[in-house]
Amino acid sequence: MNETLNQFKDYLKTMRRYDHVLTLLFWDLSTQAPEKGVETRMDAINYFSTEEFRLSTADEYGQMLKKLSEPEQFDTLDEAMQITVKRYLRDYERYKRIPQDFYSSYAEAKTRSERAWEKAKHSADFTEFAPHLEKVISMTKEYVHYMEPDQDPYEVLLDLYEEGIGSATIDCVFDELKEGLLPLLQKIEDSPRPDLSALEGTYDIQSQKEVQDMLLDYIGFDADAGATAESEHPFTTDLCIGDVRVTNHFKEEDPLSAMFSAIHEGGHAIFGQSIDPAYEGTALEQVNMMGLHESQSRFFENILGRRASFWKPIYAKLGELLPQFQKIPQETFCHAINDVHPSLIRTEADEVTYCLHIILRYELEKAIFRDNIPVNDLPQLWNDKMEELLGIRPENDAEGILQDMHWSDGSFGYFPSYLLGSMYDGMFLEALEKEKGSVDTILEEGRIQEITAWLKENIHRYGSRYTSAEVLEHVCGQKLSAQPLLHYFTEKYARLYGFEA
Amino acid sequence: MNETLNQFKDYLKTMRRYDHVLTLLFWDLSTQAPEKGVETRMDAINYFSTEEFRLSTADEYGQMLKKLSEPEQFDTLDEAMQITVKRYLRDYERYKRIPQDFYSSYAEAKTRSERAWEKAKHSADFTEFAPHLEKVISMTKEYVHYMEPDQDPYEVLLDLYEEGIGSATIDCVFDELKEGLLPLLQKIEDSPRPDLSALEGTYDIQSQKEVQDMLLDYIGFDADAGATAESEHPFTTDLCIGDVRVTNHFKEEDPLSAMFSAIHEGGHAIFGQSIDPAYEGTALEQVNMMGLHESQSRFFENILGRRASFWKPIYAKLGELLPQFQKIPQETFCHAINDVHPSLIRTEADEVTYCLHIILRYELEKAIFRDNIPVNDLPQLWNDKMEELLGIRPENDAEGILQDMHWSDGSFGYFPSYLLGSMYDGMFLEALEKEKGSVDTILEEGRIQEITAWLKENIHRYGSRYTSAEVLEHVCGQKLSAQPLLHYFTEKYARLYGFEA
Repeated sequence: MNETLNQFKDYLKTMRRYDHVLTLLFWDLSTQAPEKGVETRMDAINYFSTEEFRLSTADEYGQMLKKLSEPEQFDTLDEAMQITVKRYLRDYERYKRIPQDFYSSYAEAKTRSERAWEKAKHSADFTEFAPHLEKVISMTKEYVHYMEPDQDPYEVLLDLYEEGIGSATIDCVFDELKEGLLPLLQKIEDSPRPDLSALEGTYDIQSQKEVQDMLLDYIGFDADAGATAESEHPFTTDLCIGDVRVTNHFKEEDPLSAMFSAIHEGGHAIFGQSIDPAYEGTALEQVNMMGLHESQSRFFENILGRRASFWKPIYAKLGELLPQFQKIPQETFCHAINDVHPSLIRTEADEVTYCLHIILRYELEKAIFRDNIPVNDLPQLWNDKMEELLGIRPENDAEGILQDMHWSDGSFGYFPSYLLGSMYDGMFLEALEKEKGSVDTILEEGRIQEITAWLKENIHRYGSRYTSAEVLEHVCGQKLSAQPLLHYFTEKYARLYGFEA
Repeated sequence: MNETLNQFKDYLKTMRRYDHVLTLLFWDLSTQAPEKGVETRMDAINYFSTEEFRLSTADEYGQMLKKLSEPEQFDTLDEAMQITVKRYLRDYERYKRIPQDFYSSYAEAKTRSERAWEKAKHSADFTEFAPHLEKVISMTKEYVHYMEPDQDPYEVLLDLYEEGIGSATIDCVFDELKEGLLPLLQKIEDSPRPDLSALEGTYDIQSQKEVQDMLLDYIGFDADAGATAESEHPFTTDLCIGDVRVTNHFKEEDPLSAMFSAIHEGGHAIFGQSIDPAYEGTALEQVNMMGLHESQSRFFENILGRRASFWKPIYAKLGELLPQFQKIPQETFCHAINDVHPSLIRTEADEVTYCLHIILRYELEKAIFRDNIPVNDLPQLWNDKMEELLGIRPENDAEGILQDMHWSDGSFGYFPSYLLGSMYDGMFLEALEKEKGSVDTILEEGRIQEITAWLKENIHRYGSRYTSAEVLEHVCGQKLSAQPLLHYFTEKYARLYGFEA
């Protein structure tokens, strides 16, 4: 009956196939492709990316979207398809405004900039990277100006990674958080640091992999709907709902790194695996809200994974797989995984100081996009803010502004989503405990699957049907607030470090 | 200047990208894709296969090929491009004659037949598979009739897998071989079998993987231009000259299986990795001559890998990785890997009786395609031939006609290439020893890389520039003959089993 709808569904299927193939080409490139095959691989990636862009900006596609948006058609669609048409029409119009030539040269500039960043980071020399960064900044401004000519560029960027939050809200909750965090951090700093020496040693990589598999299984990762591999940096990738994969990076001298990466990426993957299969082929199976996605990885990694109760049912098993842990009392271990201490590198930061790393980046991004601050002033500004927020100062730019790859490839506006995710987690924790009782009790009793089930039921299965703000409203009955996260931090660290909350 | 040539080269690049992607989709499906992702994967494979078929039968492509075939254009092309145009025009015309609908339903029938075969093999029930086999046979006849309406269908099939040999030659050399092999096998059978009990035990899988890597490195596999993984059955796959991958299958109780698979697949891979990079983008980098390809895997596996001299430089290393071998004298080991004895399963057969397994299949394929023998008579015919050639009879069809997948997916005409490969090996061995002296001396002195270099220089680098017959002419100065292989077998086993040659 509805011929356009069927055509549209077929068209989406084809686009999804390109997406599937591109995802696999990248996954394989990061996990397995040998050095001498990289050039051919990059050529294939470029070709199929261009084809995908062509499909997503084709007139034929636009006509279908417009036809389905007309009331007499739109009203006959089910909810998932209505959301899909609305969202994809917006994307279509955005991308259609980008000249193909500009799109290609922007992609090229980003690739060159990424390479320059890698070198610059390696030699801790910002001047090598500066001209590339300058170009990427100006082209990113142009890019979002094409997309949304009437909107503030940074607002558009924020919206790309976490739809519907916006800088007014972020300003407000980040300030709230900063205000609560700085005195808390001071109290933690005034207490003695946990002793980490018991963990020193060399840990067999093969056994670490078995620990990873054990942890993934424990938190609810479905091995029949995913796979694991190794890569330089851990990541999660979705080929389809039935195939969501995680990578890890193992270090002989640091077993905690791979353990918490496994829990973190496992959290992302469980989200991807748990989306309602009925949404397959619609926009709802694609979760581009990075804050919401990050909230799920961080919920497993921090809210659950850094509790004594999380480890209680599996600590003996951990000791079987990595015998060194048999000699480390569980209490010592739980202090070690909650060592809060200012440090220079975001990805190695604890859950508390991590927040300040993000606030720093967010403030700099606003300075870049709103105050047009010269690129050459950025390293100094970074270091000053680091000192202001965390009381430490990088000795070189590799430990400072060059540490993250995000800006090199134009992902401005992405950083805030990490911290939004943590704030959602504070709220989800409250809602979960209100409904199911103490998380510690549930974990201690080995009922972690009830928590995973709660997250699936309330969040995962909907995919991107709801915006993050709507999810918070439904699950927590509240608007975004920093207080629950602050409350969680204060409670937890007062107890762990023995000061008054 | 030559606009058509440039267009053609671009078109080939695009086709190669589809090939790259399809190869990766299959590789990942066999090595890593989880159960729940298979449906989406199969959909992507079907879609991109259809696109590839469309590209290879497009009018636009045919016009380019025809234009480049005209003398005034053709004469300006370099040799690689001339061969490419000739070969691809032939393929284009062949495929163009196949109706798209027939192509799709043939593909579907083969997929269904493969599944039916799997089940039938599992339950050892030929009747389940018979109707599918009948359909695949009749459709394969139709398929090759479309391709080459004026030729004998089985001749066309043979040509698909080993161009330019043909059944007249195969009849002749297979008969020659059979005649020599049967008395040799009788002599071996009359001698005492080697004692294999020293090898019994359980072998750590992780260590077996290290043995694999050691063997691949030893024979000359370039790890920067390839990768390894696990799959149900070992295979080699070429993504490009710089990325040729091998799989293996490890069994705790049988370390020899994975060791010889590694050497075998490594031989295929070294061939793929060693093709002249100047041939990239031409037909010459694609080696569809399965006999020639198989000759390279079997040269490493059998001609080299089953010699005491091959193991001498690495036997101590093998013992380090798998300590059980420290207790097995090298002589016992070398007898064990040369245990010649009639058995029912082709893939588990020794290098001598293997030949007879192929002759059996070749004779049956001729009966199917030339004598139109009814499908239901095939199991009995199989078993009778088995008894005639090897003196043993399968107890059920899983050990008989159902053991191989080849016929289920229409790969009739493929089997002979395995044995042709072995016969080429006999000839290559003669040529190599004539030029470089005793292979045993070279191997004992740890100079195996000189043998690999000789194979690269004389065979690999040319890719498919020459047909197998031309390679034999160039490298050995002779036409195909079974005598060198027979000579190699007789010499070797007379020495090993202590009878008179």
